[in-house]
Amino acid sequence: MSKFLNPNFRRSKKEMLTLDEMVSGIYSGNISVLSKAITLVESMHPEHRRQARLLLDTLGTPKIQSKRIGITGSPGVGKSSFIEFLIKQKEKEAFAILAIDPSSSESKGSILGDKTRMESLVGRSNVYIRPSPAGKTLGGISAKTKETILLCEHAGFPNIIVETVGVGQSETMVSEMVDVFILLILPGSGDEIQGIKRGIMENADIIVITKNDENRETIVRASIKSYKNALHLFRPKYKGWTIPVIPNSIYALSNAQSVWNEINEFISFSKENGFFEEIRYRQQTIWFEQQIQDLLMQYVLDIPGLQETISKQKLSFSKKETSVFKGIKEIEQFLKIQS
Amino acid sequence: MSKFLNPNFRRSKKEMLTLDEMVSGIYSGNISVLSKAITLVESMHPEHRRQARLLLDTLGTPKIQSKRIGITGSPGVGKSSFIEFLIKQKEKEAFAILAIDPSSSESKGSILGDKTRMESLVGRSNVYIRPSPAGKTLGGISAKTKETILLCEHAGFPNIIVETVGVGQSETMVSEMVDVFILLILPGSGDEIQGIKRGIMENADIIVITKNDENRETIVRASIKSYKNALHLFRPKYKGWTIPVIPNSIYALSNAQSVWNEINEFISFSKENGFFEEIRYRQQTIWFEQQIQDLLMQYVLDIPGLQETISKQKLSFSKKETSVFKGIKEIEQFLKIQS
Repeated sequence: MSKFLNPNFRRSKKEMLTLDEMVSGIYSGNISVLSKAITLVESMHPEHRRQARLLLDTLGTPKIQSKRIGITGSPGVGKSSFIEFLIKQKEKEAFAILAIDPSSSESKGSILGDKTRMESLVGRSNVYIRPSPAGKTLGGISAKTKETILLCEHAGFPNIIVETVGVGQSETMVSEMVDVFILLILPGSGDEIQGIKRGIMENADIIVITKNDENRETIVRASIKSYKNALHLFRPKYKGWTIPVIPNSIYALSNAQSVWNEINEFISFSKENGFFEEIRYRQQTIWFEQQIQDLLMQYVLDIPGLQETISKQKLSFSKKETSVFKGIKEIEQFLKIQS
Repeated sequence: MSKFLNPNFRRSKKEMLTLDEMVSGIYSGNISVLSKAITLVESMHPEHRRQARLLLDTLGTPKIQSKRIGITGSPGVGKSSFIEFLIKQKEKEAFAILAIDPSSSESKGSILGDKTRMESLVGRSNVYIRPSPAGKTLGGISAKTKETILLCEHAGFPNIIVETVGVGQSETMVSEMVDVFILLILPGSGDEIQGIKRGIMENADIIVITKNDENRETIVRASIKSYKNALHLFRPKYKGWTIPVIPNSIYALSNAQSVWNEINEFISFSKENGFFEEIRYRQQTIWFEQQIQDLLMQYVLDIPGLQETISKQKLSFSKKETSVFKGIKEIEQFLKIQS
């Protein structure tokens, strides 16, 4: 077996692994190898994409079925503290935390700041924290995150938490790749002046009202009432599941158990009703479609000069020097010469 | 100029038009020619796609800027009656009504049933009603609807109504191609047992509570209160615009004027604040991207045998006879032989 290119190709060549080394490293839960494999699946380089497919193909179907938990909420709602709090209670269980922040390329990432705040987890050998790929398109991030989840399952993590900021459409994407999706809400003063993005409630299976700390009980109670009322206006996502709206304080450890109970209850519910298998199968189908698109695009973008032609037309369009029609015509002309 | 292929190629060849005939027919507002042009842009046939691009390119930028109004709501909310009611008041203005129903291919379309219900409009020569393309992907429908809107503008329609069923994600797509987006809600009994899809409120600029008829005032009032309260929980879509929640009865003609006032007020607001131009420019950018994807996919799918290979793998996958990995590998192998 030929040596795998090191995906992080700016570093020394010594870090290269063979396919066999990578596979056995992942199977044995070697975090350093897992990290390299994730970097490989995140890479947009065509050769790396081919290697990533080969790697995933060789790994096959994961031997364990992990619990995949999605967590979202506005910036400042306390996502990191909440995750830390949830995990702290389960000292003996292993967790992989994947953080997706499509906005981080612009805002230079709250993600890293957040991660260093999960101090109590840093020392734990059974917790693996990984910031997200900064993909250009949501579709791209989606395929890569799906693959990262698989790698973590192969590495033996029974719990995978996917964290995302509740801005843009990333939360819809994440909700489509997890088994249970939790929305965190920080109650504002009285009439919820902070506000959340309307579409997010769409996808929640459980709503947690954060910072139910001393002297904030009245605000929290009002918030619970508002969200429960609002939920009445909507069609249920799953027939038979009433979305719980639960208060939480990270200073009361008993609260963590309540959240875990709701998570387990939802997963039991969705398994009993067949939703669980249905969702996972739909996820596989979406992923298959994405992979096909990916492959075809990669094939066509390998045509020498095409990417430059497209970039040139996009630039002209953004400068308002060309129209959509003319831009498309130029690209079409270029392709005509090729075939 | 060579004869244009008749997009509806099962009919007689006599119906073919030259490019010049099509362009001048559209410019003069000839409905029969407009319908043929829309059928052309809706076609997935590669040659028709090329002709559609040539047609749109020749037409250039529309001479008028139409008012583009999106309307959504659950089945049974009264969308058709509402549109008929809105248009009836404006006898002298021309309207194009485009109905998008991505679910129609499965449910065999409520759309046609709805359309025949707009009886009072059928006799009007200045109203053009067109059911949607039954595209396979939302992206596909989106690009085609965008092109249909352009054709209607070229044909001189100052008002274009895009109607969609509030199921799936079509309403997000429609909200991205109109100037103002109206959500219709039918109040249920007491606690809104009917429910709407949660994500739809995301995109509304105006909410209309329908069937505010005699003896229903109490239910309607309760519904208005609920939705106003729920809206408080959300971040505003546009700073400075409070989404109006207005009751409507199609038996009170004065109500139509209230809706028109809100529509005009929103458009004025978005023009004054620069949102209008911003949205239209973003729409153009999205469309450009879609067109590029479309072009590249078309190019690659022209490879003889590729489509058959993909279909075969998808079928095997749906029968659970192959995995995502194996399916992708087969398609990759096929492509490798080509290059």
